[in-house]
Amino acid sequence: MNIDMIRSAATRLDGVVRRTPLLSSPFLDEIAGRRVYVKAECLQHTGSFKFRGAWSALTALPETERARGVLAYSSGNHAQGIARSAALLGVPAVVIMPEDAPALKIANTRALGAEVVLYDRVTGDRAAIGAALAEERGLTLVRPFDEPQVIAGQGTCGLEIARQAADEGISDADVVVCTGGGGLASGIALALAETAPNLRLRTAEPEGFDDVARSLAAGTPQRNDRQSGSLCDAIVTPEPGALTFPILKAHAGPGLVVSDDEAMRAVALAFLRLKIVVEPGGAVALAAALFRPDLIPGDAVIAVATGGNIDPALFAQALSMHT
Amino acid sequence: MNIDMIRSAATRLDGVVRRTPLLSSPFLDEIAGRRVYVKAECLQHTGSFKFRGAWSALTALPETERARGVLAYSSGNHAQGIARSAALLGVPAVVIMPEDAPALKIANTRALGAEVVLYDRVTGDRAAIGAALAEERGLTLVRPFDEPQVIAGQGTCGLEIARQAADEGISDADVVVCTGGGGLASGIALALAETAPNLRLRTAEPEGFDDVARSLAAGTPQRNDRQSGSLCDAIVTPEPGALTFPILKAHAGPGLVVSDDEAMRAVALAFLRLKIVVEPGGAVALAAALFRPDLIPGDAVIAVATGGNIDPALFAQALSMHT
Repeated sequence: MNIDMIRSAATRLDGVVRRTPLLSSPFLDEIAGRRVYVKAECLQHTGSFKFRGAWSALTALPETERARGVLAYSSGNHAQGIARSAALLGVPAVVIMPEDAPALKIANTRALGAEVVLYDRVTGDRAAIGAALAEERGLTLVRPFDEPQVIAGQGTCGLEIARQAADEGISDADVVVCTGGGGLASGIALALAETAPNLRLRTAEPEGFDDVARSLAAGTPQRNDRQSGSLCDAIVTPEPGALTFPILKAHAGPGLVVSDDEAMRAVALAFLRLKIVVEPGGAVALAAALFRPDLIPGDAVIAVATGGNIDPALFAQALSMHT
Repeated sequence: MNIDMIRSAATRLDGVVRRTPLLSSPFLDEIAGRRVYVKAECLQHTGSFKFRGAWSALTALPETERARGVLAYSSGNHAQGIARSAALLGVPAVVIMPEDAPALKIANTRALGAEVVLYDRVTGDRAAIGAALAEERGLTLVRPFDEPQVIAGQGTCGLEIARQAADEGISDADVVVCTGGGGLASGIALALAETAPNLRLRTAEPEGFDDVARSLAAGTPQRNDRQSGSLCDAIVTPEPGALTFPILKAHAGPGLVVSDDEAMRAVALAFLRLKIVVEPGGAVALAAALFRPDLIPGDAVIAVATGGNIDPALFAQALSMHT
């Protein structure tokens, strides 16, 4: 992994990806006691940053390989990124999703043109299911995060942040990123290290699923005890990636951790103050930026709102509890 | 009013205004049977396009006049645009608001630093209240739409649309704009007529408050029977503006009209498919783009989502009814 791969991915994404805005509100600044900027990746195609990595990976494949089709496993956002990218490129996509994934994400993945195969998150073995399907149909597996061209695609978000921060006159800040397997966080970390070393990556995770924070503290990969049971479904992963963790270890500051309740408060504040729709797993970075001021240095902080694919009932619950 | 005033306003807004994105979704394209693009002005500072006109008007005032302070009357979005602009420029602002304006808009206007004076929409005379205050304190009135520098500021949104449409390869389309007094619609109409004559302005209004549509059809200004009773509070005005109507008459196609229920469906679809928060009055253009395909020509349409300052309970209602 290196910056040249991210720059190449940016070239392939040019004219396709949406350059998402950097939003702010004096009301959020007041809560955090500093300027707060939110990179609104929930406004990306398919409602999350995952479109970047999916498009990057699919366009990096040799044409004959891509034409046979691609395979992904995902709780929802990678699924939609793959489905949409494959549809735009005119190739088949099969996505293996846990049967307890949000109904909206499953429905959207199908509607975007992918074939969806459901499995049981606790008893099923998605890797085995995927391997069998790949073998049978000649599909190429696109991993959700531990895949160089996916990390390169996500890193393009970091190139945009570096430019937008310069435009806003932000000379020095932590960049807080919602972190599951670490694809986005490691891609942004690499991009910032090369193009804006004054911006430092920080990971944000939900309580009980803070494998990256504990891994960064220990210096070696740590696992989560549970694999489900958080509102932040988008970023629940068993452990940091083999490719992503070394990058985070080299570049990231101490990991930040917030509660599900804080994530829901951030969802409500993003609605109220920024007019964007963010899912809980996409709001943990904003929650950390707002509610962990003692752990974040400086007079400005940038949080990435990574996705907005939230079931309407859960969104209504965030509003009724926190506005 | 001319294009040079809009270009001057764009210069004054440069570096301050947010260049809002043009969003899209294959799910919306399918509903409308054509490509649908949404200019997300709900992501503008203070949650609506009104910040453009407010900043334009305040920065066009002579410095000594501006320093004495400004006065506005508004149901909420102009109020917040004025309050925020005045705070950023360090001058006092007094805003006269109807007492039945959404609680959130009143609270935000105060929190943004303006003094709020409430009046009764049916029995009160806001013009008289404003004139007395202006006299007493030496305040300059900034009208919400019938004010050349406000129209010029709103027109900068049209300059952005012209550039973004060209970037997207949109060669020919209607641009549907939520219309109350017509400040935004007339500003955009002027900007498009000069810079993108292949983009045609269309107004969108709620049923029962379709004064502009009827005025365009009649060729002379028509009044609404009622002054309240729509969910689309942001765009309920008694009649078209004296400055704005001649511009619309010269440049706009036939006016589009949607029901409150259709506006609420558009609010829900903007949540689900674009991940933006839009208020009913800010969603009538999207509703028209989606639900009036027979009245809109061509294979692409651009709708301006003008504002996102919606009370959480009403937003939750849109989601529970329409998702």
